[in-house]
Amino acid sequence: MKELSASVDSLWVLIAAILVLLMQAGFAFLESGSLQSKNAGHITGKQIITLAISSIVFWAVGYGVAFGDGNAFIGGSKFFLSGVPSGADSIFFLFQLAFAAVSLAIAWGGFAERAKLSVYFIFGTVFIAIIYPVVGHWVWGGGWLSTLGMQDFAGSTVVHLQGATAALVGTLLLGPRIGKFKDGKPQTIPAHSIPFVYLGTFILWIGWFGFNAGSTVSIGNGMFFGYVALTTNMAAAAGALGALFAAMILRKTADIGAMCNGVLAALVAITASCAFVEPWAAIVIGAVAGAFTYWTAIALEAKGLDDPIYAFSVHGISGIIGTLSTGFFAAPALVKLAGVGKAGLFYGGGFHQLGVQALGVVAAFAFVAVASFIVLAIMKATMGLRVSAEAEKAGLDISEHGAYGYGETK
Amino acid sequence: MKELSASVDSLWVLIAAILVLLMQAGFAFLESGSLQSKNAGHITGKQIITLAISSIVFWAVGYGVAFGDGNAFIGGSKFFLSGVPSGADSIFFLFQLAFAAVSLAIAWGGFAERAKLSVYFIFGTVFIAIIYPVVGHWVWGGGWLSTLGMQDFAGSTVVHLQGATAALVGTLLLGPRIGKFKDGKPQTIPAHSIPFVYLGTFILWIGWFGFNAGSTVSIGNGMFFGYVALTTNMAAAAGALGALFAAMILRKTADIGAMCNGVLAALVAITASCAFVEPWAAIVIGAVAGAFTYWTAIALEAKGLDDPIYAFSVHGISGIIGTLSTGFFAAPALVKLAGVGKAGLFYGGGFHQLGVQALGVVAAFAFVAVASFIVLAIMKATMGLRVSAEAEKAGLDISEHGAYGYGETK
Amino acid sequence: MKELSASVDSLWVLIAAILVLLMQAGFAFLESGSLQSKNAGHITGKQIITLAISSIVFWAVGYGVAFGDGNAFIGGSKFFLSGVPSGADSIFFLFQLAFAAVSLAIAWGGFAERAKLSVYFIFGTVFIAIIYPVVGHWVWGGGWLSTLGMQDFAGSTVVHLQGATAALVGTLLLGPRIGKFKDGKPQTIPAHSIPFVYLGTFILWIGWFGFNAGSTVSIGNGMFFGYVALTTNMAAAAGALGALFAAMILRKTADIGAMCNGVLAALVAITASCAFVEPWAAIVIGAVAGAFTYWTAIALEAKGLDDPIYAFSVHGISGIIGTLSTGFFAAPALVKLAGVGKAGLFYGGGFHQLGVQALGVVAAFAFVAVASFIVLAIMKATMGLRVSAEAEKAGLDISEHGAYGYGETK
Repeated sequence: MKELSASVDSLWVLIAAILVLLMQAGFAFLESGSLQSKNAGHITGKQIITLAISSIVFWAVGYGVAFGDGNAFIGGSKFFLSGVPSGADSIFFLFQLAFAAVSLAIAWGGFAERAKLSVYFIFGTVFIAIIYPVVGHWVWGGGWLSTLGMQDFAGSTVVHLQGATAALVGTLLLGPRIGKFKDGKPQTIPAHSIPFVYLGTFILWIGWFGFNAGSTVSIGNGMFFGYVALTTNMAAAAGALGALFAAMILRKTADIGAMCNGVLAALVAITASCAFVEPWAAIVIGAVAGAFTYWTAIALEAKGLDDPIYAFSVHGISGIIGTLSTGFFAAPALVKLAGVGKAGLFYGGGFHQLGVQALGVVAAFAFVAVASFIVLAIMKATMGLRVSAEAEKAGLDISEHGAYGYGETK
Repeated sequence: MKELSASVDSLWVLIAAILVLLMQAGFAFLESGSLQSKNAGHITGKQIITLAISSIVFWAVGYGVAFGDGNAFIGGSKFFLSGVPSGADSIFFLFQLAFAAVSLAIAWGGFAERAKLSVYFIFGTVFIAIIYPVVGHWVWGGGWLSTLGMQDFAGSTVVHLQGATAALVGTLLLGPRIGKFKDGKPQTIPAHSIPFVYLGTFILWIGWFGFNAGSTVSIGNGMFFGYVALTTNMAAAAGALGALFAAMILRKTADIGAMCNGVLAALVAITASCAFVEPWAAIVIGAVAGAFTYWTAIALEAKGLDDPIYAFSVHGISGIIGTLSTGFFAAPALVKLAGVGKAGLFYGGGFHQLGVQALGVVAAFAFVAVASFIVLAIMKATMGLRVSAEAEKAGLDISEHGAYGYGETK
Repeated sequence: MKELSASVDSLWVLIAAILVLLMQAGFAFLESGSLQSKNAGHITGKQIITLAISSIVFWAVGYGVAFGDGNAFIGGSKFFLSGVPSGADSIFFLFQLAFAAVSLAIAWGGFAERAKLSVYFIFGTVFIAIIYPVVGHWVWGGGWLSTLGMQDFAGSTVVHLQGATAALVGTLLLGPRIGKFKDGKPQTIPAHSIPFVYLGTFILWIGWFGFNAGSTVSIGNGMFFGYVALTTNMAAAAGALGALFAAMILRKTADIGAMCNGVLAALVAITASCAFVEPWAAIVIGAVAGAFTYWTAIALEAKGLDDPIYAFSVHGISGIIGTLSTGFFAAPALVKLAGVGKAGLFYGGGFHQLGVQALGVVAAFAFVAVASFIVLAIMKATMGLRVSAEAEKAGLDISEHGAYGYGETK
């Protein structure tokens, strides 16, 4: 009976892991669809490299840094999964690997359409081996933020803010794409395929059921996984509408790409808070994240930042919104079920939880920003981060891979 | 043990809900692939709006109308899920939400390539809040058709006929697309991407395992869910071949789009009957529905109806075929397992069940037709349903959303 | 308790079956994306036919040949599933059907861009009714190779080598596509959509979790299914990198199509061995299969073989590598868990298991090659296998189906 119960829990975690792995295709189509056709083969192919590197490096090193025994700052055992793991450990590894690979996919969004292929290999290896798992250890591996009671149920900070911070550093060090700014004003580089943008967005929406509800790692506890799936879906729906209305008000256009980013921003925000908030609060969090992301994407671009798929707005700013949101909205009864931290400000919990959440955000952002900057600055100084202007204009499909992604292009 | 068993049942329902939600992408690609490239961004984006509106409105109102306590005609509690639902209730809500969103997606098929964006928002809200859940209450929420023993296992009538009826009303009130008829003869508007049509069809085929087998809401009862999955798959396969052969005989062409519609028609037909019929009967029902749909699609078009993706043929006429089919084919042993209604005509059950099924079809069709007509006729008179001829010719991507769906189009 | 345990096992098998069925879309997009746009509608549509034929024929005949009671060479009961199967039997049938349909999809890869539509119907029927299930019976249905202790956990030989052998025979009898060779030198026919190639590859990667880990048909046995999922993923990741590095070394280009084929070659190779080898060995097997496939694809093409999507290299040669690999790498503790055969050469098991594996490979290859040759040679002599040169040049979309797959093509 106990064994059956444990097996069923692991079955759920494996299904959730598969859903989260599926999100790789979500990023592939979101990113390739949003960008130019001359890079579409490169971008989708890159997503295979993301998962390949993540699998090998997280197995060898990263998982041990995040979940190995160690101190409050870093883990240091379970490298190479210590040989032949049990079935349950294998599944937990796959689930965590899927999260790490999502974070790397987000990071790489900031590098799009101009970074060298070799940059992905080197930075990806460092990110998965060291950067991502250190913060993972702090929050989920028994590290200092976990001891403080930080609420980050499925990783608004661990997965999304980390990836987005690395994307931001990459964006800054790479500089804007050729033609993105004209006399300092941002130019529209049109999405080559909205159907692909839709496909990517929708796969991510679906995958997020694994991401959030899977983070219960159990179907017990009053079937709490079901409740988490509910808040996740409600937030996504509200994010779509929040962003669409924001676009209609601010720019008088029912911008589909903006709506899709609103779905994702909402999902990023509910990632930390899915287990702690009531359905109405999930809707508020989703709508705010969706609408606010639309505005920050425009605002950062106006300031000269060329973040090609708005990775920092969608995953970074919304990651912060989501992480802080539990400090306001965490409901006592749900906090008890989720088993981490305290109630939020609106439920009489005072400022304590909000302070913990803010500390977590600042610490994660600072660590990832500094670590990514050091790695990428060294790479920039030595090997260079960016392809030649000629290669960028021709597109990465032909220049980095020797063939157009749409091979019948003349 | 009892708790574990209930948790596992809910796990299955959540997985099924995810499969049914996935069908949204099926409709997005089926519809956008079947239609013109100038509307491809609009159509896929619309599918995000479908799920967003459905989620918010079904949560607030529709679920309570369908499944709340009430009388034989309408439910009236559980609005806003009454606060914080249990895990099991959350999952059941998500499963039912996924069905409602499928019905709305079908309805919107009839509006394709010419309706205003605002029409989707307004009609969608009314459909999910009131129209769909009323019939849902009649059949599945303890209403009068359920009392009569109507057999509609997974919703040939509740989901498909309802959506198709609304689509038909929309089609009639909107009128044909510009250029569809020339001297009264229907013109071919070519599918811009058969690969997308395939993708949509196949996603729907897969999603239907959740739709039908998930409607057992349990893995017990002799693992009846497995049997339902089998009949579903056999019908789909037969529908593909039935439609393909019909096309080869009637029009001498191995029409891929027709074959795909045959798969869907068969799946719609088996939706009511999946739990009640033997495998050979599932094949017969699927083949008949597939072949007949090909013929009705041509026949209705020849009569001047421009239903752009044949929503009424595929979901309406096949929905009727499927609902009536149990009146003929319901086998006594399976009726006992499914636990609803009586055996069909071919198994010595007489005309009783057939009569109940016919009554359900007529009642659902009449209610949805009248309700949809009232709502849409008022909208037509006040705000107008259709974009300008200029906007329609330019395509809804550029006219309603300000950018081409294939953004590099000149 | 026992019933609940059995139900949960079947739930897992149904989920796995759905994942394996999903692989049909993987083949559709891999194949259509890798080939010319003028055949894209045909190829994706063909994939519906694959599953439709497989469903009907495997239900009527093939399943009984593979899993019916019989002798060491062939089964002979359970035709038409003997009426109304139980839920558990229904699910096992769907799981096995999904495997058979994968094998047929592989076979048809060798026929691409030049075979007549009717050829698919006739050869597909024979393959699913007789050829595939005979070898299936030998290895999984209690036949002579199973008695010898052959280790083919999820079908490197049963599914992949069989399909690939039929593809090879088809390729040889059909001859190269028009324009593939110029003065005896192979010409590049560019992939029309790398995003589709990616989509297909990634769907296959995900589907393979069902393929391999589902082949445990249980979540018990120390949750062994989780361990199998792990080795599967590690091999795929290594295959991507193995093939990419091979391409960069041999041809100085980071070829995305080659990397995708490397993923698949690795997955094919780990299919037999996933349950028997340690994670490091899975990585070695995957990397070797990925790199070697790149080389064999080039080498066979240079010898005049036009296998349009390298079906024989990816599924045949890697199938052999995978089947033989357990003869080297099978670890004693895992062999005990998997419950078939003996340890491999590197673990002190001597040459015994390697011999059994080699015998299985030779027997399966010989049977399928001879049987496929007889069927296809008769068809070639009577009805002809190939469309006219004119039809081939125009593309199969317009010549076999009466409409372009991208319908707005002029």
